[in-house]
Amino acid sequence: MKRQEFVDQLLKRAKGTPGTRGEAFAPANIALCKYWGKRNAELNLPVNSSLSISLGKLGTRTIIKFSKTSDRIFLNGKPAPKAFAERLSTYLDLFRPEGLFFEVRTKNNIPTAAGLASSASGFAALVKALDDLMGWGFTPRELSLLARLGSGSAARSLYDGFAVWHAGQRPDGMDSYAEGLSNVWDDLRVGILEVSRVRKKTGSTEGMNRTRETSELYRSWPAQAQCDYDELRTAIAAKDFPMFGKTAENNALAMHATMMAAWPPLCYWKPQSVSLMQKVWKAREAELELYFTMDAGPNLKLLFLTGDQAAVRRLFPKVQIVNPFL
Amino acid sequence: MKRQEFVDQLLKRAKGTPGTRGEAFAPANIALCKYWGKRNAELNLPVNSSLSISLGKLGTRTIIKFSKTSDRIFLNGKPAPKAFAERLSTYLDLFRPEGLFFEVRTKNNIPTAAGLASSASGFAALVKALDDLMGWGFTPRELSLLARLGSGSAARSLYDGFAVWHAGQRPDGMDSYAEGLSNVWDDLRVGILEVSRVRKKTGSTEGMNRTRETSELYRSWPAQAQCDYDELRTAIAAKDFPMFGKTAENNALAMHATMMAAWPPLCYWKPQSVSLMQKVWKAREAELELYFTMDAGPNLKLLFLTGDQAAVRRLFPKVQIVNPFL
Repeated sequence: MKRQEFVDQLLKRAKGTPGTRGEAFAPANIALCKYWGKRNAELNLPVNSSLSISLGKLGTRTIIKFSKTSDRIFLNGKPAPKAFAERLSTYLDLFRPEGLFFEVRTKNNIPTAAGLASSASGFAALVKALDDLMGWGFTPRELSLLARLGSGSAARSLYDGFAVWHAGQRPDGMDSYAEGLSNVWDDLRVGILEVSRVRKKTGSTEGMNRTRETSELYRSWPAQAQCDYDELRTAIAAKDFPMFGKTAENNALAMHATMMAAWPPLCYWKPQSVSLMQKVWKAREAELELYFTMDAGPNLKLLFLTGDQAAVRRLFPKVQIVNPFL
Repeated sequence: MKRQEFVDQLLKRAKGTPGTRGEAFAPANIALCKYWGKRNAELNLPVNSSLSISLGKLGTRTIIKFSKTSDRIFLNGKPAPKAFAERLSTYLDLFRPEGLFFEVRTKNNIPTAAGLASSASGFAALVKALDDLMGWGFTPRELSLLARLGSGSAARSLYDGFAVWHAGQRPDGMDSYAEGLSNVWDDLRVGILEVSRVRKKTGSTEGMNRTRETSELYRSWPAQAQCDYDELRTAIAAKDFPMFGKTAENNALAMHATMMAAWPPLCYWKPQSVSLMQKVWKAREAELELYFTMDAGPNLKLLFLTGDQAAVRRLFPKVQIVNPFL
């Protein structure tokens, strides 16, 4: 099935009529059980289900209007870089009324493509803004199906708090949607440790494909991901923080491990990533309940509870602490 | 089967009578297809076959005599550290004539336990020196069975040049021996990049056990190792350097990947290890035929051909270059 067919099928469910302006915000999300590997590249269908926590007020705000002459894409107040604008225009083609163009103004309050999943919040905000402009009246679940086409992990950015993205089984991808979990974990905190803002050389899609095609160890990934997904849901329901932290950290390291075993080797780590990891491990040996996760990039995201916030700040004075439920 | 039974069974084949002094040298070896995981800890039987290159004149020289009062172990001219001496004495118990003790003087010209496999050359030299002292008249293959009991990879240090250690299948371990390959590769060079001489916190045996017991990705390791072993033998026979280097580097990274996916995570890398790896990858992108391998430690061992030696020296002025066939 092609992307356009998928969209057309979904748009049959739309109700209402277009307005003149759409606006929306979507949070960034950090995967605790990672999306790593596509079973269908055209429809962004994943090998495994994933689970994330959204970052509250950190994310993307997008305003969309119609435009008469050509697409006009602005990122953080300036005309967007060409690659960025082209990716958005290609995506917007899926929804473009005949003879019309779009003006999109999008703002991130997180660094773009530094492993902080700005493409996730970006496509989620765009889809929500489109829904607002076009008057589709879609549910978050329906919007997650559309956001997925822009960037897989964007499906999870339709929700605050914890979200799961079901891998699904159908070839048409209609069961590969995200949904929010009702669990609230008030004293959970995420600490962002930025190692680099430099745009990564190998994008996630290329990284996934190379890993899936060349890494022998990747064969064990789907089973691990399924197991981690189940354990995380159990840990969240029980608010079992050690189980939660351990599973998230192990899942992230296993994902990076599958990449290192690819060819050519894929290592998103920088030297400083390793020293930060070692600092976390040392703190944990000294009984601090501190864990981390990492996306396909060099930055660490710490996971801890409010009771340890002061200790975490002492260890990592530059940490940016986020309350995901605020 | 117990170690002592294994030794007793082998010693039935011994001929000759003890002398008063034994002396031997054994080279360090660097695994190109790694030994990672034991199927039998008592007998040091490996999960997978491995393949190595010995480091010529870098290794261990050991002199052994009888002693009347107690074992006296010297390392590099000084009384050996307690843990080292105890490990040797426990091993020597397997061969101890009633009422006798040993005096062992062992010297490494490589750093101890910095991932440069000094336990491999150490136990190989000890076993050869024992054979010299006791007059067993064993073949290298028989000695490799005995060296294996001291440290698995020591089996491969009985040989110069390329060596393979067959995993074997028998529960008694009698088919898990090493043998040398006759292939000579005159223009092959190994470059040692030392990141740290600090003794590693987690020894190889503990690291293997933790990985085997907790790393989901390790399930894919035996198949990868078998495949890499076959490819390396093919590459060595054909002197296909790119295939040789790629397979060795990928094998090493896959081994480290299985550890990172263990719990608690096991990362022998230091920040500088990552920057050196990235330097190698960058050089390779610029068409330099340069690869690396790493043991369970932070140091890199470069693999290249003599034609690129000058370029390698320019990139890594501190590299220690070894001709394995000299």
